[in-house]
Amino acid sequence: MQRTNLNKESCPLARGLDVIGEWWSLLILREAFAGVRRFDDFHLNLGIPRNTLTQRLTKLVEFGILEKRLVSEKARRHEYALTPIGVELLPALILIREWSTRHLFKPNEKCVRLVDARDQSDVSIQTKLVSKKGKPVRLQDLQLITPK
Amino acid sequence: MQRTNLNKESCPLARGLDVIGEWWSLLILREAFAGVRRFDDFHLNLGIPRNTLTQRLTKLVEFGILEKRLVSEKARRHEYALTPIGVELLPALILIREWSTRHLFKPNEKCVRLVDARDQSDVSIQTKLVSKKGKPVRLQDLQLITPK
Repeated sequence: MQRTNLNKESCPLARGLDVIGEWWSLLILREAFAGVRRFDDFHLNLGIPRNTLTQRLTKLVEFGILEKRLVSEKARRHEYALTPIGVELLPALILIREWSTRHLFKPNEKCVRLVDARDQSDVSIQTKLVSKKGKPVRLQDLQLITPK
Repeated sequence: MQRTNLNKESCPLARGLDVIGEWWSLLILREAFAGVRRFDDFHLNLGIPRNTLTQRLTKLVEFGILEKRLVSEKARRHEYALTPIGVELLPALILIREWSTRHLFKPNEKCVRLVDARDQSDVSIQTKLVSKKGKPVRLQDLQLITPK
């Protein structure tokens, strides 16, 4: 696929998507959130080709989203763990998850649940747009301003 | 790129990403949020190849995220407008935008601003995880449960 590299542009969404907005990268992050740490487990769980997985993990490490740690010097085994910067992406993934649950699943269809580990009750995410002055903002009030 | 189609799986994030989690699709949505409606404008603004744009728009229409409307019968001109289902994706895009602004931009770098159109003050998004019982949930309390 040809792709215009918008990384140099002033749009943070474009730049963010250039780093994480790729099907495999987002699924790697999902696995990482679910506790997966090892190359072989990412490979097996996602069915992702090994060279693609290597590329994506390298990029996620480069941008500080995952950290590559040596866990066994003898076996030269590494783990990939989410950094605090990576964890900050979780709310966006949860929002996409909820949107998908509402619109792409039938009411009785089996669906992975996101729960509170303490009592297994379903968890949802609430969002609120606020202006710098703390005023609530509606979607229709939003405007994008491109810098000169 | 080879890709395992997880659309039939029970993970809503995977299914959602199968529909929208593609670099171009998310940038098309960004343009739509910014008010772009016409094929040629998406094409020019994004530098996206016409056949790729056609494919992505068709998929977004198929899943009810965009609506294709005939706006001039004479000129056979169509527009693509966000549906309410499409608008529901906006908070996720704003979160990715904010994450990117924090971690991929230098402090003084020029960056597209998201503002309240009424007074041009910067807008941010707040998120809160809550359990079904209304209890606040921390990221470390989260657990995914796969259906049997």
